Amino acid sequence: MTPVWLDGALLDAAAARIDPADRGFLLGDGLFETIRVLDGRPDRLAAHLARLRAGAAVLEIPLPYGDDALASALAGLAGAARIGSGSLRLTLTRGPGPRGLLPPGTPRPTVLATAAPAGPSLPPARVVVATVTRRNERSPLSRLKTLNYLDGVMARQEAARRGADDALMLNGAGRLAEATAANLFAVIDGRPVTPPVEEGALPGIARAEAIARLGAVERPVALSDLARATEIVLTSSLSIRPVVAVDGRPVGDGGPGSMAAALAT
Amino acid sequence: MTPVWLDGALLDAAAARIDPADRGFLLGDGLFETIRVLDGRPDRLAAHLARLRAGAAVLEIPLPYGDDALASALAGLAGAARIGSGSLRLTLTRGPGPRGLLPPGTPRPTVLATAAPAGPSLPPARVVVATVTRRNERSPLSRLKTLNYLDGVMARQEAARRGADDALMLNGAGRLAEATAANLFAVIDGRPVTPPVEEGALPGIARAEAIARLGAVERPVALSDLARATEIVLTSSLSIRPVVAVDGRPVGDGGPGSMAAALAT
Repeated sequence: MTPVWLDGALLDAAAARIDPADRGFLLGDGLFETIRVLDGRPDRLAAHLARLRAGAAVLEIPLPYGDDALASALAGLAGAARIGSGSLRLTLTRGPGPRGLLPPGTPRPTVLATAAPAGPSLPPARVVVATVTRRNERSPLSRLKTLNYLDGVMARQEAARRGADDALMLNGAGRLAEATAANLFAVIDGRPVTPPVEEGALPGIARAEAIARLGAVERPVALSDLARATEIVLTSSLSIRPVVAVDGRPVGDGGPGSMAAALAT
Repeated sequence: MTPVWLDGALLDAAAARIDPADRGFLLGDGLFETIRVLDGRPDRLAAHLARLRAGAAVLEIPLPYGDDALASALAGLAGAARIGSGSLRLTLTRGPGPRGLLPPGTPRPTVLATAAPAGPSLPPARVVVATVTRRNERSPLSRLKTLNYLDGVMARQEAARRGADDALMLNGAGRLAEATAANLFAVIDGRPVTPPVEEGALPGIARAEAIARLGAVERPVALSDLARATEIVLTSSLSIRPVVAVDGRPVGDGGPGSMAAALAT
């Protein structure tokens, strides 16, 4: 039995049904959060729920549960799934709707939570700069964690084809935005920097913490800037991952650096 | 009973279940086609299936049915749903997968077809130019009919807020790309033109036909070009719709023109 939480009930995944008319399925009309579980408890939960709520307000999707109810649902799911260390995914969609793009006047949103045990710890990453696609910093969706994840999927497929662990994504202007599912920090000219949200970076929760801890500067990062980075690190809610090569060229001395070590503690 | 066709079987929509682990639901990892039904038969079906197959090849999603099987499924669904005049939607997703962006090595794609009767015929459209978001002509997804439809949903919401019927969408360069679910044709300096696919226009099937019938020129269309258009028409597989106002300003003499009439016959 694999427990999931769907619209208020804890049930077996095999019995959980998403309506084929769900706009999450038909149009990617929804949002999600990936939440780390540490010692059986959701980590940074308040920040995740605040971000989900802010995104739902932008998309005008009513979130039918309060924070306490969601916290209780997630804790219950982590317990039922016996996840001591791992992750939870909380998905909110606008729910079923009739044909067409315009949302129904009174949506019945879908809320799904799933749990996964921690995978093996990831080695330092060898990445490529994605050539197949770009992030769209001109869309507000670049600042929301939505179900429209196909650009990231395509970039990740490109990385796999090229024998890399992940891909860095450029924005429409050709500057660095982030990785496929993580934010990007680099030490350039001796200072930690990260691309601004306006450049197409998702406002990651681990990113905000890393900016504060490192005193990192948010500024546009060109490929020529990245080429002289002495250290690169990818941050997400689930991991802090050093980047040891970009497009086959070593970063710094080719091993994890002090920024990664500072963030991992 | 509302019949749908799901993974090889015709069944009632209430009994049709999408797996909560389906990547179409979790990541928008899939494609769709909207096909007009005329006299109970799918219209331009070969072109729709060819486009779906081309998109699936780009995304590396195996399509588990041949064209004959899909044609038979769609005809059967149109019959079961008693759709004489209306539309079918054929959705292909990569199917369920484990956590993460990288597709499973052996995907089990989901194929869903649904049917809808024709709505009331649409009056000429009053549109706005969307300000909230832009299409991403730097992504191959702008040329595929994917489940990542949230930019279009947001633009459509903006149109509704502003009292309009639809929104025209700009690309990252600030030029016209298309409407939220239709291509854009305009008569500018006496010639019919439409934005090229490279400008962020979906390669619509009705668009290809209209280009051929009108002898339309594919060229970038700036807002200043659109401002002097004497006629504007939106084309989709389901309708040919004249645009009689943009941002509150009448187009031409404010009524449907001869290009719309030529395409409607």
